[in-house]
Amino acid sequence: IELAVDGGEHPDTIAALTSDPLAGVAVNYTGERHDLDDVRLLAPVIPRSKVVGVGRNYAAHAAELGNEVPAEPLLFFKPNTSVIGPTDTILLPDGADEVHFEGELAIVIGRICKEVPVERAADVIFGYTIANDVTCRNWQQSDGQWARAKGADTFCPIGPWINTHLTPDEAGRLSLQSHVNGELKQDSNTSHMIRGVAELVSYISAFTTLLPGDLILTGTPEGVGLIRPGDEVNIDIDGLGTLSNPVDKA
Amino acid sequence: IELAVDGGEHPDTIAALTSDPLAGVAVNYTGERHDLDDVRLLAPVIPRSKVVGVGRNYAAHAAELGNEVPAEPLLFFKPNTSVIGPTDTILLPDGADEVHFEGELAIVIGRICKEVPVERAADVIFGYTIANDVTCRNWQQSDGQWARAKGADTFCPIGPWINTHLTPDEAGRLSLQSHVNGELKQDSNTSHMIRGVAELVSYISAFTTLLPGDLILTGTPEGVGLIRPGDEVNIDIDGLGTLSNPVDKA
Repeated sequence: IELAVDGGEHPDTIAALTSDPLAGVAVNYTGERHDLDDVRLLAPVIPRSKVVGVGRNYAAHAAELGNEVPAEPLLFFKPNTSVIGPTDTILLPDGADEVHFEGELAIVIGRICKEVPVERAADVIFGYTIANDVTCRNWQQSDGQWARAKGADTFCPIGPWINTHLTPDEAGRLSLQSHVNGELKQDSNTSHMIRGVAELVSYISAFTTLLPGDLILTGTPEGVGLIRPGDEVNIDIDGLGTLSNPVDKA
Repeated sequence: IELAVDGGEHPDTIAALTSDPLAGVAVNYTGERHDLDDVRLLAPVIPRSKVVGVGRNYAAHAAELGNEVPAEPLLFFKPNTSVIGPTDTILLPDGADEVHFEGELAIVIGRICKEVPVERAADVIFGYTIANDVTCRNWQQSDGQWARAKGADTFCPIGPWINTHLTPDEAGRLSLQSHVNGELKQDSNTSHMIRGVAELVSYISAFTTLLPGDLILTGTPEGVGLIRPGDEVNIDIDGLGTLSNPVDKA
Protein backbone atom coordinates (compact mmCIF):
# COMPACT_ATOMS: atom_id res chain seq x y z
CA ILE A 1 0.00 0.00 0.00
CA GLU A 2 1.47 3.32 -0.98
CA LEU A 3 -0.66 6.41 -0.89
CA ALA A 4 2.06 8.99 -1.33
CA VAL A 5 4.02 7.55 -4.24
CA ASP A 6 2.54 9.82 -6.90
CA GLY A 7 2.62 12.98 -4.84
CA GLY A 8 -1.11 13.02 -4.35
CA GLU A 9 -2.03 12.54 -8.00
CA HIS A 10 -4.28 9.60 -7.09
CA PRO A 11 -5.71 10.42 -3.64
CA ASP A 12 -7.64 7.74 -1.76
CA THR A 13 -6.33 4.88 -3.86
CA ILE A 14 -3.91 2.05 -3.12
CA ALA A 15 -1.28 0.66 -5.48
CA ALA A 16 -0.51 -3.08 -5.74
CA LEU A 17 3.04 -4.26 -5.00
CA THR A 18 4.90 -7.33 -6.20
CA SER A 19 6.03 -8.46 -2.73
CA ASP A 20 6.27 -7.67 0.99
CA PRO A 21 8.32 -4.52 1.73
CA LEU A 22 9.32 -6.10 5.06
CA ALA A 23 10.71 -9.28 3.44
CA GLY A 24 13.99 -7.68 2.39
CA VAL A 25 13.51 -8.32 -1.34
CA ALA A 26 12.98 -5.92 -4.26
CA VAL A 27 9.48 -4.40 -4.32
CA ASN A 28 7.90 -3.00 -7.46
CA TYR A 29 4.55 -1.48 -8.38
CA THR A 30 2.42 -3.63 -10.66
CA GLY A 31 0.60 -0.59 -12.05
CA GLU A 32 -2.68 -1.86 -10.58
CA ARG A 33 -4.62 0.63 -8.50
CA HIS A 34 -7.79 0.33 -6.36
CA ASP A 35 -10.05 2.88 -4.74
CA LEU A 36 -9.57 2.80 -0.97
CA ASP A 37 -13.36 2.47 -0.61
CA ASP A 38 -13.33 -0.77 -2.61
CA VAL A 39 -10.92 -2.68 -0.35
CA ARG A 40 -10.91 -3.94 3.22
CA LEU A 41 -7.61 -3.10 4.89
CA LEU A 42 -6.09 -5.84 7.04
CA ALA A 43 -3.50 -5.29 9.77
CA PRO A 44 -0.57 -3.79 7.83
CA VAL A 45 1.80 -6.25 9.54
CA ILE A 46 1.58 -9.34 11.78
CA PRO A 47 4.83 -9.36 13.78
CA ARG A 48 6.75 -12.61 13.42
CA SER A 49 8.18 -12.10 16.86
CA LYS A 50 6.80 -9.48 19.21
CA VAL A 51 4.84 -6.40 20.08
CA VAL A 52 6.70 -4.49 22.80
CA GLY A 53 4.52 -2.10 24.81
CA VAL A 54 5.77 0.84 26.85
CA GLY A 55 3.83 1.75 29.97
CA ARG A 56 3.53 5.21 31.55
CA ASN A 57 5.40 7.07 28.80
CA TYR A 58 3.23 10.19 29.11
CA ALA A 59 3.37 11.90 32.52
CA ALA A 60 -0.29 13.03 32.43
CA HIS A 61 -1.47 9.45 31.74
CA ALA A 62 0.66 7.98 34.53
CA ALA A 63 -0.89 10.58 36.85
CA GLU A 64 -4.51 9.91 35.80
CA LEU A 65 -4.15 6.26 36.92
CA GLY A 66 -2.31 7.25 40.10
CA ASN A 67 1.08 5.95 38.95
CA GLU A 68 4.58 7.39 39.11
CA VAL A 69 6.64 7.86 35.95
CA PRO A 70 9.07 4.90 36.05
CA ALA A 71 12.83 5.49 36.33
CA GLU A 72 13.39 3.26 33.30
CA PRO A 73 10.97 2.45 30.45
CA LEU A 74 8.27 0.07 31.73
CA LEU A 75 8.02 -2.70 29.13
CA PHE A 76 5.57 -5.53 28.45
CA PHE A 77 4.79 -7.88 25.57
CA LYS A 78 1.57 -8.37 23.63
CA PRO A 79 1.50 -11.57 21.53
CA ASN A 80 1.10 -11.38 17.75
CA THR A 81 -2.18 -13.28 18.17
CA SER A 82 -3.68 -10.13 19.75
CA VAL A 83 -3.20 -8.12 16.53
CA ILE A 84 -6.28 -7.23 14.45
CA GLY A 85 -6.84 -4.89 11.50
CA PRO A 86 -7.95 -1.26 11.32
CA THR A 87 -11.69 -1.95 11.04
CA ASP A 88 -11.90 -5.29 12.89
CA THR A 89 -13.97 -5.73 16.04
CA ILE A 90 -12.47 -5.62 19.54
CA LEU A 91 -14.01 -8.57 21.41
CA LEU A 92 -14.35 -8.35 25.19
CA PRO A 93 -13.85 -11.79 26.81
CA ASP A 94 -15.88 -13.11 29.74
CA GLY A 95 -14.58 -11.60 32.96
CA ALA A 96 -12.99 -8.60 31.27
CA ASP A 97 -15.34 -6.20 33.01
CA GLU A 98 -13.38 -2.97 32.78
CA VAL A 99 -11.62 -2.64 29.42
CA HIS A 100 -9.94 0.61 28.33
CA PHE A 101 -8.80 1.87 24.92
CA GLU A 102 -5.32 3.43 24.75
CA GLY A 103 -4.42 5.35 21.57
CA GLU A 104 -0.72 5.11 20.70
CA LEU A 105 1.92 5.75 18.07
CA ALA A 106 3.43 2.41 16.96
CA ILE A 107 6.95 1.99 15.53
CA VAL A 108 7.35 -0.72 12.86
CA ILE A 109 10.85 -2.24 12.82
CA GLY A 110 12.37 -2.77 9.35
CA ARG A 111 15.65 -4.61 9.97
CA ILE A 112 16.94 -7.31 12.26
CA CYS A 113 18.88 -5.39 14.87
CA LYS A 114 20.43 -5.49 18.34
CA GLU A 115 22.01 -2.78 20.52
CA VAL A 116 21.00 0.08 18.23
CA PRO A 117 22.57 3.43 19.24
CA VAL A 118 20.04 6.28 19.59
CA GLU A 119 21.55 8.09 16.62
CA ARG A 120 21.09 5.05 14.35
CA ALA A 121 17.49 4.23 15.30
CA ALA A 122 16.20 5.70 12.01
CA ASP A 123 18.18 3.04 10.10
CA VAL A 124 16.18 0.15 11.63
CA ILE A 125 12.70 1.75 11.51
CA PHE A 126 10.43 0.81 8.60
CA GLY A 127 7.67 3.25 9.47
CA TYR A 128 4.87 4.21 11.82
CA THR A 129 1.25 3.23 12.33
CA ILE A 130 -1.48 3.68 14.94
CA ALA A 131 -2.16 1.15 17.69
CA ASN A 132 -4.87 0.72 20.30
CA ASP A 133 -3.23 -0.90 23.35
CA VAL A 134 -6.50 -2.37 24.61
CA THR A 135 -6.16 -3.16 28.34
CA CYS A 136 -8.40 -4.92 30.83
CA ARG A 137 -7.99 -2.94 34.06
CA ASN A 138 -9.52 -5.54 36.39
CA TRP A 139 -7.12 -8.24 35.11
CA GLN A 140 -4.22 -5.78 35.23
CA GLN A 141 -5.03 -5.25 38.92
CA SER A 142 -5.74 -8.86 39.87
CA ASP A 143 -2.91 -10.51 37.91
CA GLY A 144 -0.05 -8.09 38.64
CA GLN A 145 1.73 -9.14 35.44
CA TRP A 146 -0.07 -7.76 32.39
CA ALA A 147 0.05 -10.74 29.99
CA ARG A 148 -3.67 -11.50 30.12
CA ALA A 149 -4.81 -7.88 30.62
CA LYS A 150 -3.03 -6.71 27.46
CA GLY A 151 -2.56 -9.97 25.52
CA ALA A 152 -6.09 -11.23 24.86
CA ASP A 153 -7.19 -11.89 21.28
CA THR A 154 -8.21 -8.64 19.46
CA PHE A 155 -6.50 -6.45 22.10
CA CYS A 156 -4.01 -4.96 19.59
CA PRO A 157 -5.78 -3.19 16.70
CA ILE A 158 -3.24 -1.57 14.34
CA GLY A 159 -3.35 0.40 11.09
CA PRO A 160 -4.79 1.60 8.80
CA TRP A 161 -1.41 1.72 7.02
CA ILE A 162 2.30 2.22 7.69
CA ASN A 163 3.73 5.68 7.00
CA THR A 164 7.33 5.17 5.82
CA HIS A 165 8.11 8.85 5.20
CA LEU A 166 8.78 10.16 8.70
CA THR A 167 12.01 10.63 10.63
CA PRO A 168 12.02 9.71 14.35
CA ASP A 169 11.97 13.45 15.13
CA GLU A 170 8.94 14.00 12.91
CA ALA A 171 7.19 10.98 14.46
CA GLY A 172 7.82 12.66 17.81
CA ARG A 173 5.65 15.70 17.07
CA LEU A 174 2.35 14.34 15.76
CA SER A 175 -1.03 15.22 17.19
CA LEU A 176 -3.06 12.27 18.48
CA GLN A 177 -6.80 12.19 19.17
CA SER A 178 -9.06 9.37 20.33
CA HIS A 179 -12.83 9.39 20.11
CA VAL A 180 -15.35 6.93 21.53
CA ASN A 181 -18.70 7.12 19.74
CA GLY A 182 -17.62 10.46 18.30
CA GLU A 183 -16.79 12.00 21.69
CA LEU A 184 -13.23 13.35 22.06
CA LYS A 185 -11.37 11.43 24.79
CA GLN A 186 -7.64 11.85 24.13
CA ASP A 187 -6.17 15.02 22.60
CA SER A 188 -2.41 15.11 22.88
CA ASN A 189 0.79 15.07 20.86
CA THR A 190 3.62 12.53 20.62
CA SER A 191 5.95 15.34 21.68
CA HIS A 192 4.76 14.66 25.23
CA MET A 193 6.33 11.17 25.29
CA ILE A 194 8.85 10.88 28.12
CA ARG A 195 11.11 8.61 26.04
CA GLY A 196 11.07 9.38 22.34
CA VAL A 197 11.09 7.03 19.37
CA ALA A 198 14.87 6.72 18.98
CA GLU A 199 15.48 6.28 22.70
CA LEU A 200 12.90 3.47 22.93
CA VAL A 201 14.38 1.57 19.97
CA SER A 202 17.82 1.84 21.54
CA TYR A 203 16.70 0.83 25.03
CA ILE A 204 14.63 -2.17 23.89
CA SER A 205 17.21 -3.45 21.39
CA ALA A 206 19.82 -3.43 24.15
CA PHE A 207 18.39 -6.68 25.57
CA THR A 208 16.30 -8.22 22.77
CA THR A 209 16.88 -8.71 19.05
CA LEU A 210 14.24 -6.89 17.01
CA LEU A 211 13.01 -8.48 13.77
CA PRO A 212 11.44 -6.86 10.67
CA GLY A 213 7.75 -6.34 11.44
CA ASP A 214 8.17 -6.18 15.21
CA LEU A 215 6.16 -3.36 16.77
CA ILE A 216 6.90 -0.95 19.59
CA LEU A 217 3.81 0.68 21.11
CA THR A 218 5.10 3.95 22.51
CA GLY A 219 2.60 4.53 25.30
CA THR A 220 -0.67 6.42 25.62
CA PRO A 221 -1.45 9.99 26.70
CA GLU A 222 -4.12 10.96 29.25
CA GLY A 223 -7.80 10.47 28.53
CA VAL A 224 -8.07 6.66 28.46
CA GLY A 225 -11.43 5.22 29.37
CA LEU A 226 -13.97 2.43 29.19
CA ILE A 227 -15.14 0.75 26.03
CA ARG A 228 -18.31 -1.35 26.01
CA PRO A 229 -20.10 -3.58 23.51
CA GLY A 230 -21.67 -1.39 20.84
CA ASP A 231 -19.02 1.33 21.10
CA GLU A 232 -16.76 2.46 18.29
CA VAL A 233 -13.29 3.76 19.12
CA ASN A 234 -11.40 5.92 16.61
CA ILE A 235 -7.77 6.92 17.00
CA ASP A 236 -6.29 9.58 14.71
CA ILE A 237 -2.64 10.52 14.35
CA ASP A 238 -1.45 13.25 11.95
CA GLY A 239 -0.48 11.65 8.64
CA LEU A 240 -1.19 8.11 9.83
CA GLY A 241 -4.94 8.10 9.18
CA THR A 242 -7.65 6.75 11.47
CA LEU A 243 -7.77 3.42 13.32
CA SER A 244 -11.47 2.67 13.75
CA ASN A 245 -12.67 -0.41 15.65
CA PRO A 246 -16.13 -1.40 16.87
CA VAL A 247 -16.45 -3.19 20.21
CA ASP A 248 -18.50 -6.29 21.00
CA LYS A 249 -18.68 -9.16 23.46
CA ALA A 250 -16.49 -12.16 22.58
CA ILE B 1 13.88 -36.44 15.56
CA GLU B 2 12.38 -39.63 16.83
CA LEU B 3 14.27 -41.71 19.33
CA ALA B 4 11.51 -44.08 20.31
CA VAL B 5 10.14 -45.14 16.93
CA ASP B 6 11.94 -48.46 16.77
CA GLY B 7 11.30 -49.44 20.38
CA GLY B 8 14.89 -48.90 21.41
CA GLU B 9 16.44 -50.94 18.62
CA HIS B 10 18.68 -48.00 17.65
CA PRO B 11 19.44 -46.19 20.92
CA ASP B 12 21.19 -42.84 20.81
CA THR B 13 20.42 -42.21 17.16
CA ILE B 14 18.10 -39.82 15.37
CA ALA B 15 15.98 -40.55 12.31
CA ALA B 16 15.51 -38.03 9.48
CA LEU B 17 11.95 -36.87 8.63
CA THR B 18 10.53 -35.55 5.37
CA SER B 19 8.92 -32.46 6.93
CA ASP B 20 8.02 -30.54 10.10
CA PRO B 21 5.66 -32.48 12.41
CA LEU B 22 4.24 -29.12 13.58
CA ALA B 23 3.36 -27.97 10.04
CA GLY B 24 0.20 -30.07 9.82
CA VAL B 25 1.33 -32.08 6.79
CA ALA B 26 2.19 -35.78 6.38
CA VAL B 27 5.52 -36.72 7.94
CA ASN B 28 7.51 -39.76 6.88
CA TYR B 29 10.85 -41.27 7.81
CA THR B 30 13.48 -41.09 5.08
CA GLY B 31 15.31 -44.14 6.44
CA GLU B 32 18.36 -41.98 7.17
CA ARG B 33 19.78 -42.32 10.68
CA HIS B 34 22.57 -40.43 12.51
CA ASP B 35 24.35 -41.06 15.77
CA LEU B 36 23.27 -38.53 18.36
CA ASP B 37 26.95 -37.78 19.03
CA ASP B 38 27.47 -36.73 15.39
CA VAL B 39 24.83 -33.99 15.34
CA ARG B 40 24.32 -30.65 17.07
CA LEU B 41 20.74 -30.37 18.29
CA LEU B 42 19.06 -26.99 17.74
CA ALA B 43 16.02 -25.74 19.63
CA PRO B 44 13.35 -28.33 18.77
CA VAL B 45 10.90 -25.53 17.95
CA ILE B 46 10.94 -21.73 17.54
CA PRO B 47 7.41 -20.59 18.41
CA ARG B 48 5.81 -18.55 15.64
CA SER B 49 3.78 -16.70 18.23
CA LYS B 50 4.58 -16.96 21.91
CA VAL B 51 6.17 -18.51 24.94
CA VAL B 52 3.76 -18.22 27.88
CA GLY B 53 5.40 -18.48 31.29
CA VAL B 54 3.65 -19.39 34.54
CA GLY B 55 4.99 -17.82 37.73
CA ARG B 56 4.79 -19.30 41.24
CA ASN B 57 3.25 -22.63 40.19
CA TYR B 58 5.15 -24.58 42.89
CA ALA B 59 4.35 -23.56 46.47
CA ALA B 60 7.88 -24.22 47.76
CA HIS B 61 9.40 -21.97 45.06
CA ALA B 62 6.93 -19.15 45.74
CA ALA B 63 7.89 -19.40 49.41
CA GLU B 64 11.66 -19.39 48.81
CA LEU B 65 11.38 -15.96 47.11
CA GLY B 66 8.97 -14.68 49.76
CA ASN B 67 5.91 -14.70 47.48
CA GLU B 68 2.35 -15.89 47.97
CA VAL B 69 0.82 -18.48 45.69
CA PRO B 70 -1.42 -16.39 43.37
CA ALA B 71 -5.19 -16.88 43.33
CA GLU B 72 -5.10 -17.33 39.54
CA PRO B 73 -2.17 -18.49 37.36
CA LEU B 74 0.43 -15.70 37.12
CA LEU B 75 1.27 -15.39 33.43
CA PHE B 76 3.99 -13.61 31.46
CA PHE B 77 5.38 -13.74 27.92
CA LYS B 78 8.90 -14.48 26.73
CA PRO B 79 9.55 -13.51 23.08
CA ASN B 80 10.55 -16.17 20.53
CA THR B 81 13.83 -14.29 20.10
CA SER B 82 14.84 -15.45 23.61
CA VAL B 83 14.78 -19.14 22.58
CA ILE B 84 18.10 -21.00 22.19
CA GLY B 85 18.99 -24.65 21.72
CA PRO B 86 19.87 -27.38 24.22
CA THR B 87 23.65 -26.81 24.17
CA ASP B 88 23.76 -23.08 23.29
CA THR B 89 25.30 -20.51 25.61
CA ILE B 90 23.22 -18.34 27.96
CA LEU B 91 24.64 -14.82 27.58
CA LEU B 92 24.31 -12.41 30.51
CA PRO B 93 23.78 -8.83 29.31
CA ASP B 94 25.37 -5.75 30.85
CA GLY B 95 23.46 -4.78 33.98
CA ALA B 96 21.99 -8.25 34.51
CA ASP B 97 23.85 -8.68 37.78
CA GLU B 98 21.75 -11.35 39.45
CA VAL B 99 20.57 -13.97 36.96
CA HIS B 100 18.87 -17.20 38.07
CA PHE B 101 18.24 -20.49 36.28
CA GLU B 102 14.73 -21.99 36.60
CA GLY B 103 14.26 -25.60 35.46
CA GLU B 104 10.78 -26.25 34.06
CA LEU B 105 8.57 -28.66 32.14
CA ALA B 106 7.48 -27.04 28.84
CA ILE B 107 4.29 -27.90 26.94
CA VAL B 108 4.52 -27.73 23.13
CA ILE B 109 1.18 -26.86 21.50
CA GLY B 110 0.31 -28.89 18.40
CA ARG B 111 -2.89 -27.34 17.05
CA ILE B 112 -4.38 -23.89 16.67
CA CYS B 113 -6.85 -23.68 19.52
CA LYS B 114 -8.97 -21.37 21.69
CA GLU B 115 -11.05 -22.01 24.83
CA VAL B 116 -9.86 -25.60 25.27
CA PRO B 117 -11.79 -27.51 27.99
CA VAL B 118 -9.54 -29.19 30.58
CA GLU B 119 -10.64 -32.64 29.39
CA ARG B 120 -9.61 -31.87 25.79
CA ALA B 121 -6.16 -30.41 26.52
CA ALA B 122 -4.45 -33.61 25.36
CA ASP B 123 -5.91 -33.05 21.87
CA VAL B 124 -4.01 -29.78 21.36
CA ILE B 125 -0.67 -30.80 22.93
CA PHE B 126 2.09 -31.93 20.58
CA GLY B 127 4.52 -32.96 23.32
CA TYR B 128 6.82 -31.91 26.12
CA THR B 129 10.35 -30.60 26.42
CA ILE B 130 12.58 -29.01 29.07
CA ALA B 131 12.96 -25.25 29.46
CA ASN B 132 15.20 -23.01 31.51
CA ASP B 133 13.20 -19.88 32.34
CA VAL B 134 16.30 -17.72 32.81
CA THR B 135 15.39 -14.67 34.90
CA CYS B 136 17.31 -11.53 35.91
CA ARG B 137 16.23 -10.86 39.50
CA ASN B 138 17.52 -7.28 39.68
CA TRP B 139 15.54 -6.30 36.53
CA GLN B 140 12.52 -8.21 37.80
CA GLN B 141 12.66 -6.07 40.95
CA SER B 142 13.45 -2.72 39.33
CA ASP B 143 11.09 -3.01 36.33
CA GLY B 144 7.99 -4.49 38.02
CA GLN B 145 6.83 -5.97 34.71
CA TRP B 146 9.04 -8.92 33.72
CA ALA B 147 9.50 -8.36 29.98
CA ARG B 148 13.18 -7.46 30.18
CA ALA B 149 14.00 -9.74 33.16
CA LYS B 150 12.68 -12.82 31.36
CA GLY B 151 12.77 -11.74 27.70
CA ALA B 152 16.44 -11.05 26.97
CA ASP B 153 18.16 -12.89 24.12
CA THR B 154 19.26 -16.44 25.17
CA PHE B 155 16.97 -16.40 28.26
CA CYS B 156 14.85 -19.35 27.03
CA PRO B 157 16.97 -22.49 26.43
CA ILE B 158 14.76 -25.42 25.38
CA GLY B 159 15.30 -29.04 24.40
CA PRO B 160 17.00 -31.39 23.79
CA TRP B 161 13.96 -32.89 22.03
CA ILE B 162 10.16 -33.05 22.22
CA ASN B 163 8.65 -36.15 23.81
CA THR B 164 5.35 -36.82 22.01
CA HIS B 165 4.44 -39.99 23.91
CA LEU B 166 3.10 -38.64 27.21
CA THR B 167 -0.42 -37.90 28.37
CA PRO B 168 -1.01 -34.74 30.44
CA ASP B 169 -1.32 -36.95 33.52
CA GLU B 170 2.00 -38.66 32.79
CA ALA B 171 3.65 -35.27 32.19
CA GLY B 172 2.37 -34.31 35.62
CA ARG B 173 4.43 -36.91 37.50
CA LEU B 174 7.98 -36.57 36.18
CA SER B 175 11.02 -36.05 38.38
CA LEU B 176 12.98 -32.85 37.66
CA GLN B 177 16.57 -32.10 38.72
CA SER B 178 18.76 -29.08 38.05
CA HIS B 179 22.52 -29.02 38.52
CA VAL B 180 24.92 -26.07 38.32
CA ASN B 181 28.51 -27.19 37.70
CA GLY B 182 27.49 -30.70 38.75
CA GLU B 183 25.99 -29.63 42.07
CA LEU B 184 22.34 -30.60 42.66
CA LYS B 185 20.18 -27.46 43.04
CA GLN B 186 16.60 -28.47 42.22
CA ASP B 187 15.19 -31.92 43.00
CA SER B 188 11.43 -32.04 42.62
CA ASN B 189 8.61 -33.57 40.60
CA THR B 190 6.04 -32.04 38.26
CA SER B 191 3.38 -33.56 40.53
CA HIS B 192 4.01 -30.59 42.84
CA MET B 193 2.66 -28.09 40.28
CA ILE B 194 -0.26 -26.14 41.71
CA ARG B 195 -1.99 -26.01 38.30
CA GLY B 196 -1.36 -29.04 36.15
CA VAL B 197 -0.75 -29.32 32.42
CA ALA B 198 -4.37 -29.59 31.29
CA GLU B 199 -5.57 -26.82 33.59
CA LEU B 200 -2.90 -24.42 32.30
CA VAL B 201 -3.72 -25.10 28.63
CA SER B 202 -7.39 -24.48 29.37
CA TYR B 203 -6.81 -21.30 31.41
CA ILE B 204 -4.41 -19.73 28.91
CA SER B 205 -6.42 -20.63 25.81
CA ALA B 206 -9.46 -18.96 27.39
CA PHE B 207 -8.07 -15.53 26.47
CA THR B 208 -5.44 -16.11 23.76
CA THR B 209 -5.37 -18.29 20.65
CA LEU B 210 -2.54 -20.84 20.83
CA LEU B 211 -0.68 -21.76 17.64
CA PRO B 212 1.26 -24.93 16.76
CA GLY B 213 4.72 -24.56 18.26
CA ASP B 214 3.69 -22.17 21.02
CA LEU B 215 5.21 -23.07 24.37
CA ILE B 216 3.84 -23.00 27.91
CA LEU B 217 6.53 -22.99 30.63
CA THR B 218 4.81 -24.54 33.61
CA GLY B 219 6.79 -22.94 36.43
CA THR B 220 9.82 -23.90 38.48
CA PRO B 221 10.18 -25.77 41.78
CA GLU B 222 12.30 -24.59 44.71
CA GLY B 223 16.10 -24.46 44.49
CA VAL B 224 16.61 -21.70 41.91
CA GLY B 225 19.86 -19.81 42.17
CA LEU B 226 22.57 -17.70 40.59
CA ILE B 227 24.36 -18.52 37.35
CA ARG B 228 27.61 -16.78 36.48
CA PRO B 229 29.94 -16.68 33.46
CA GLY B 230 31.80 -19.99 33.28
CA ASP B 231 28.97 -22.00 34.85
CA GLU B 232 27.15 -24.86 33.20
CA VAL B 233 23.50 -25.49 34.10
CA ASN B 234 21.92 -28.88 33.43
CA ILE B 235 18.21 -29.61 33.78
CA ASP B 236 16.96 -33.21 33.66
CA ILE B 237 13.38 -34.37 33.43
CA ASP B 238 12.43 -38.08 33.33
CA GLY B 239 12.14 -39.19 29.71
CA LEU B 240 12.85 -35.73 28.30
CA GLY B 241 16.65 -35.90 28.44
CA THR B 242 19.02 -33.19 29.65
CA LEU B 243 19.06 -29.51 28.77
CA SER B 244 22.67 -28.40 29.19
CA ASN B 245 23.74 -24.79 28.69
CA PRO B 246 27.00 -23.02 29.49
CA VAL B 247 26.88 -19.42 30.74
CA ASP B 248 28.98 -16.49 29.57
CA LYS B 249 28.94 -12.70 29.44
CA ALA B 250 27.11 -11.20 26.43
